[in-house]
Amino acid sequence: MTITITAFEQSPDGGKGLARDTRIRWALEEVSQPYEVRLVSFRAMKEPAHLALHPFGQIPTYQEGDLVLFETGAIVFHIAQRHAGLLPADANARARAITWMFAALNTVEPPILELATARLLEADKPWYQERLPLVADRVRCRLKQLSAHLGGADWIDGAFSAGDLLMVSVLLRLRSSGILDEYPNLAAYVARGEARPAYKRAFTAQLAVNTAKSPTG
Amino acid sequence: MTITITAFEQSPDGGKGLARDTRIRWALEEVSQPYEVRLVSFRAMKEPAHLALHPFGQIPTYQEGDLVLFETGAIVFHIAQRHAGLLPADANARARAITWMFAALNTVEPPILELATARLLEADKPWYQERLPLVADRVRCRLKQLSAHLGGADWIDGAFSAGDLLMVSVLLRLRSSGILDEYPNLAAYVARGEARPAYKRAFTAQLAVNTAKSPTG
Repeated sequence: MTITITAFEQSPDGGKGLARDTRIRWALEEVSQPYEVRLVSFRAMKEPAHLALHPFGQIPTYQEGDLVLFETGAIVFHIAQRHAGLLPADANARARAITWMFAALNTVEPPILELATARLLEADKPWYQERLPLVADRVRCRLKQLSAHLGGADWIDGAFSAGDLLMVSVLLRLRSSGILDEYPNLAAYVARGEARPAYKRAFTAQLAVNTAKSPTG
Repeated sequence: MTITITAFEQSPDGGKGLARDTRIRWALEEVSQPYEVRLVSFRAMKEPAHLALHPFGQIPTYQEGDLVLFETGAIVFHIAQRHAGLLPADANARARAITWMFAALNTVEPPILELATARLLEADKPWYQERLPLVADRVRCRLKQLSAHLGGADWIDGAFSAGDLLMVSVLLRLRSSGILDEYPNLAAYVARGEARPAYKRAFTAQLAVNTAKSPTG
């Protein structure tokens, strides 16, 4: 059955790989599964046809026959469950890898999202300059703990897993802030993720959408 | 094997059920699994012994023989996978229920967390009164979409699932803000969750910890 995902017709980041379809492309590349991409405009994302696939009006979605999924965590998990390469076979190691998937999305990403929201939506507010360091420190609190846990390891719990895929993806959103570079082992961890052939293919594919002359096919 | 979870020695909410151990207690009650609770002080949460279980120095943790997990999403999923009652048997329905687990934690909870953070950590800041409505509106954006999706249904995708358990738990954090009551079907949905015998047992158990005269056993 054909896998079809949705992506931004024009990504707000202009192709830096920060839109969430990159996470799904990366997961599919890791397990060597082909996929098709349907591009969606900002207007179409809020219309009933797309809301029927994604109740929160976002991308990506994942369609495979009758199955329709949203949420990058759930889609990556679905892919990881069906194809070898993203979750360990041992039951306990698998449960720990799933723990890191949730940790990436529910513990590490929220303060990073708050920082992104401040920069995107509150840069014109009178409190912006004074508040930003507070928000950045909340990010640092999590990064410091993550850095201590990772130590000198290549990946977060043994072999590369879906937990690493999501954690690297979440941390990538921080690069432009400069905060990631304050934690050299985390910066190296992210670079290790970006160096994976599957990530490179995913990145190139999303970039091609955003550098195409006509925005939609 | 005995299941042991950790909880706050003294919960910041004084027993309103908002500490995250309640989510785990609820899941275990839904599948009728006994568990033990080890209480942890704020100081102990930041010490090496606890950080070895939970790298981000929080509660709850979950221990069962050699297995150590953290992250409520991962723990609820682990319980749901091993015992009937929290995930549908049909593969597609199961994938959708997992999608709602991630939606609760990665789409609905982040703005609710941002609102809680503002109220907890920025109430003394000069921008607090002006900024709060902006943050509340970000919560409303998600609630409006969730409310439209739920419509008149009892649960979010057919039978009660781990997705509902986490979504109700996340929405409960909003009650004191009054925002939840702006969406009557969501308020009724949360009340439906609270009315479940398993939730009531979980709530009573966490309350008992917080109303005990001496805070630790």
